[in-house]
Amino acid sequence: MPIVTIQQFPRDLEQKRRLARRITEAFEEVYGARAESVQVFFHEVDGEHWARGGEMGCDIPRD
Amino acid sequence: MPIVTIQQFPRDLEQKRRLARRITEAFEEVYGARAESVQVFFHEVDGEHWARGGEMGCDIPRD
Amino acid sequence: MPIVTIQQFPRDLEQKRRLARRITEAFEEVYGARAESVQVFFHEVDGEHWARGGEMGCDIPRD
Amino acid sequence: MPIVTIQQFPRDLEQKRRLARRITEAFEEVYGARAESVQVFFHEVDGEHWARGGEMGCDIPRD
Amino acid sequence: MPIVTIQQFPRDLEQKRRLARRITEAFEEVYGARAESVQVFFHEVDGEHWARGGEMGCDIPRD
Amino acid sequence: MPIVTIQQFPRDLEQKRRLARRITEAFEEVYGARAESVQVFFHEVDGEHWARGGEMGCDIPRD
Repeated sequence: MPIVTIQQFPRDLEQKRRLARRITEAFEEVYGARAESVQVFFHEVDGEHWARGGEMGCDIPRD
Repeated sequence: MPIVTIQQFPRDLEQKRRLARRITEAFEEVYGARAESVQVFFHEVDGEHWARGGEMGCDIPRD
Repeated sequence: MPIVTIQQFPRDLEQKRRLARRITEAFEEVYGARAESVQVFFHEVDGEHWARGGEMGCDIPRD
Repeated sequence: MPIVTIQQFPRDLEQKRRLARRITEAFEEVYGARAESVQVFFHEVDGEHWARGGEMGCDIPRD
Repeated sequence: MPIVTIQQFPRDLEQKRRLARRITEAFEEVYGARAESVQVFFHEVDGEHWARGGEMGCDIPRD
Repeated sequence: MPIVTIQQFPRDLEQKRRLARRITEAFEEVYGARAESVQVFFHEVDGEHWARGGEMGCDIPRD
């Protein structure tokens, strides 16, 4: 613990690397957690496996 | 919110599209939720990553 | 399978009952699934355990 | 999206508030995400519902 | 890793204790994992938060 | 129920097969559950989708 699971659109490795570091630091600073105790899982989901407002992401025009 | 996560066997896009629409409508009608607030995630799992009764799906004869 | 997990604000039992029925029917009609194979889990989360936009739900004025 | 689910020991509201803010800022800065699109769920688990190394948390002497 | 999340009906602590031990041993013996790397989370769900076959658990006559 | 979700590094099918059997037996013996009621999901995650201590798995030297 703590275990962090992120459901997100695919991102490149460098972005995930930076995000994992930032999230882990947040647990260290706010909770006083040891960095080693923090695990982060990235579940990447594309627009054919996610819907909002009843429409699949692949059918929604991106802004 | 609400966030709906579905663990299922792989289905084609058109089936997921119809299911996401139906589920979103259910939240609108039963909960009075705004469609835009409903997100649906499809986690598709094949028979090599799922077991029932102690047997992997790929080892279970399908009906 | 399929397993449906819903993260939502607390709702009364009758609303969950109706929603579970509607969702199960959607799987029957769209996927041809047997009703008995569909399980729905409700994870109810209050505003002290959920944040959006960096603010805890309990700090966000409700519309 | 993105949806962040945190499994953790219980923490007080102020700590969760600060953590949610920090995590949301990380998504804004690293991914360029809009803050409004980031949701964070806290699943708090006590030592009677979590085990490590085959021992329930409530049986493990805390450091 | 590995992280094991169990969605189940409520059980008493002694049963969860024994189950966590058995599951952890399975990872040690089958995967060669270190016991310390295995975490087990119990998400207990009652019949008002779970449905099968479109019926809430609390409405299903138990066998 | 019960539903078991395992987040783990990729393993070959034979290892998952043996683990699923062992876990299912544990539920039968400890809880008195029917084997058929136990479902196990394997979510395999590689080192580019998991971090510990703020470092992506692919950046951590394996022991």
